[in-house]
Amino acid sequence: MVVKNKVQSVVVSWWRKNALLLSTSRTLNTFATGFDNRILKSPPLVSLDDFPDDVWTSSSTNFYEPLTYKLASDHTAKVIDGKQIAEEIISEVAVQVRSMKKTIDEVPGLAVILVGERKDSQIYVRNKMKACEDAGMRFSLTEFPESCTEDEVCDVIMSYNVDPSFHGILVQLPLPQHLNEEKILDLLKLEKDVDGFHPMNMGNLAMRGREPLFIPCTPKGCVELLIRSGVEIMGKKAVVIGRSNIVGLPASLLLQRHHATVSIVDASTPNPEEVTREADILVSAAGVPNLVRGSWLKPGAVVVDVGTHPVEDPCSEQGYRLLGDVCFEEALKVVSSITPVPGGVGPMTVAMLLYNTLESASRKYNIL
Amino acid sequence: MVVKNKVQSVVVSWWRKNALLLSTSRTLNTFATGFDNRILKSPPLVSLDDFPDDVWTSSSTNFYEPLTYKLASDHTAKVIDGKQIAEEIISEVAVQVRSMKKTIDEVPGLAVILVGERKDSQIYVRNKMKACEDAGMRFSLTEFPESCTEDEVCDVIMSYNVDPSFHGILVQLPLPQHLNEEKILDLLKLEKDVDGFHPMNMGNLAMRGREPLFIPCTPKGCVELLIRSGVEIMGKKAVVIGRSNIVGLPASLLLQRHHATVSIVDASTPNPEEVTREADILVSAAGVPNLVRGSWLKPGAVVVDVGTHPVEDPCSEQGYRLLGDVCFEEALKVVSSITPVPGGVGPMTVAMLLYNTLESASRKYNIL
Repeated sequence: MVVKNKVQSVVVSWWRKNALLLSTSRTLNTFATGFDNRILKSPPLVSLDDFPDDVWTSSSTNFYEPLTYKLASDHTAKVIDGKQIAEEIISEVAVQVRSMKKTIDEVPGLAVILVGERKDSQIYVRNKMKACEDAGMRFSLTEFPESCTEDEVCDVIMSYNVDPSFHGILVQLPLPQHLNEEKILDLLKLEKDVDGFHPMNMGNLAMRGREPLFIPCTPKGCVELLIRSGVEIMGKKAVVIGRSNIVGLPASLLLQRHHATVSIVDASTPNPEEVTREADILVSAAGVPNLVRGSWLKPGAVVVDVGTHPVEDPCSEQGYRLLGDVCFEEALKVVSSITPVPGGVGPMTVAMLLYNTLESASRKYNIL
Repeated sequence: MVVKNKVQSVVVSWWRKNALLLSTSRTLNTFATGFDNRILKSPPLVSLDDFPDDVWTSSSTNFYEPLTYKLASDHTAKVIDGKQIAEEIISEVAVQVRSMKKTIDEVPGLAVILVGERKDSQIYVRNKMKACEDAGMRFSLTEFPESCTEDEVCDVIMSYNVDPSFHGILVQLPLPQHLNEEKILDLLKLEKDVDGFHPMNMGNLAMRGREPLFIPCTPKGCVELLIRSGVEIMGKKAVVIGRSNIVGLPASLLLQRHHATVSIVDASTPNPEEVTREADILVSAAGVPNLVRGSWLKPGAVVVDVGTHPVEDPCSEQGYRLLGDVCFEEALKVVSSITPVPGGVGPMTVAMLLYNTLESASRKYNIL
């Protein structure tokens, strides 16, 4: 009990100190980059790195008493409304865009490059375009046929790299097999890599004491959803399913920066459900519809479902409906809150893309 | 049972395919960089990225039967002899250095920068110097007093960056508080960053499909020890204690590239022993002597102890002895194998530094 109190008090005092640091670092951040991220609730990452190393205890006493959730038989989880939160963020971005326009007669600009005719990619790009227009941003789409050459794509990137009216460049993934994704992504100017997929950005996201120029949009959206839903991340067991460069990996790194105890499960994990059942927070980006069953979940857990899988549905107007990685109906009976598919992480990804583009422009002009 | 067999056969066929890939990629590697990493058992990382995504199963059946170790009452763990393995590697490096000297009249060169008078840093640097000399490499040490300026350190790095006789540059950490570690490390030419601490290297280590120029020495040594001791990493639960940029973080990323299911525990984890008790492989880099007690360990686990803590000991000749993060005597009764302190990870770190420097020189001259 003594140890528990000690640890709790250290944690509390760390938070107090951190709250101070947050406000200081926000001031510094504003001073250094001219950008005050008032729109997001997510703090600058370096402000999280000050957790003292001396909290370790050599005692083997189990001083942690896990929360035991007693779910009522008619329990239904809270559904986290990603669409509404994303709309709030986009309208706040729009306010800042108008202010930028008024102050310096500039607006943030996003250039998107789309190769091939994938239906899902086309839908994603259309959503991004619409959101940019709603927020009053400049938007440019360059489309290439599946058969285009690497040089053609590279040339367009190079021209956007030096075009001062575009502050963000995004190559819609996946690219056709014959194009070298690594080479193409590495060509993006770091200051315009609003997707945050450059290895330099990923390294800075991973490393304590460093701040990436951009955090990849989907994981950033997941964490912002958690924060806005009042979910405490620090000290919680988080499990990330999937280890992709665009979601799983950066999500696990970001949750670590927020001091969660993170486990990463991938297709080579022989017993994924055993690991996920330990999760206070589960972020699933496996890419398999309904992979996560109710029995995979800890009662009272918070679930963020990144999966988006179209499955045929003759009853639906479009002829298909979207499923997530998580069996939604089963999960509702077990977890405390969950993001739906659609209307959960998807809209947040777009909102974060707009935010990153605004951040990039604000950094460039040293304003807001 | 059927599912189990299915998964096993997929894993087996993946390994077969991978073994082929390994040999192919080794050939490619030799062709592309002139460097054949015959010395290490660790495979190129990209060769590990081909694990198929379709191994996921939607079944919630628990098809995994964890190994249950029955330890005899007089059980004693195997002690992994890092000193001997490191000596083997260094002597293999020495052979390649001689061959390089003979073929092109060049030897790999390592430049070390040491700031201040920390006893431990001085010992580490001395060990590195001695190993370089033993392997026939060029070695240069630049020492600065604690009071030196950032510019002085930066100037030396800049001159080593362009000096063709040095293929590796290492800044001994930690630096005194008044020096900006981030700025200094970022100045290192990527091609000479044999410590692998540059965020670009870290990003490439983290990302599937990419290969860093250098893997940080200590985590690389840990994994090489596991491989040489016949420990299979894929599909195992690995826990890394500590999240430092130089050990914990890259160790967790490297183990993920080897398809372990990795959990990362840090000082903010409220119940570390609960997490570590699940580990088939435990890598401890907490920086707290005897933090990990016998009761923290799963019977039959493999433990890699990165901690090195001098504690006063009047009975010892030097007046002190070294302790690890792990209670060695207690662990011996529980685990299947463990690295000792000293004589475990420490010598491997030096061996990997020499290997990375040789790799750097070989890459430059496109030989061996």
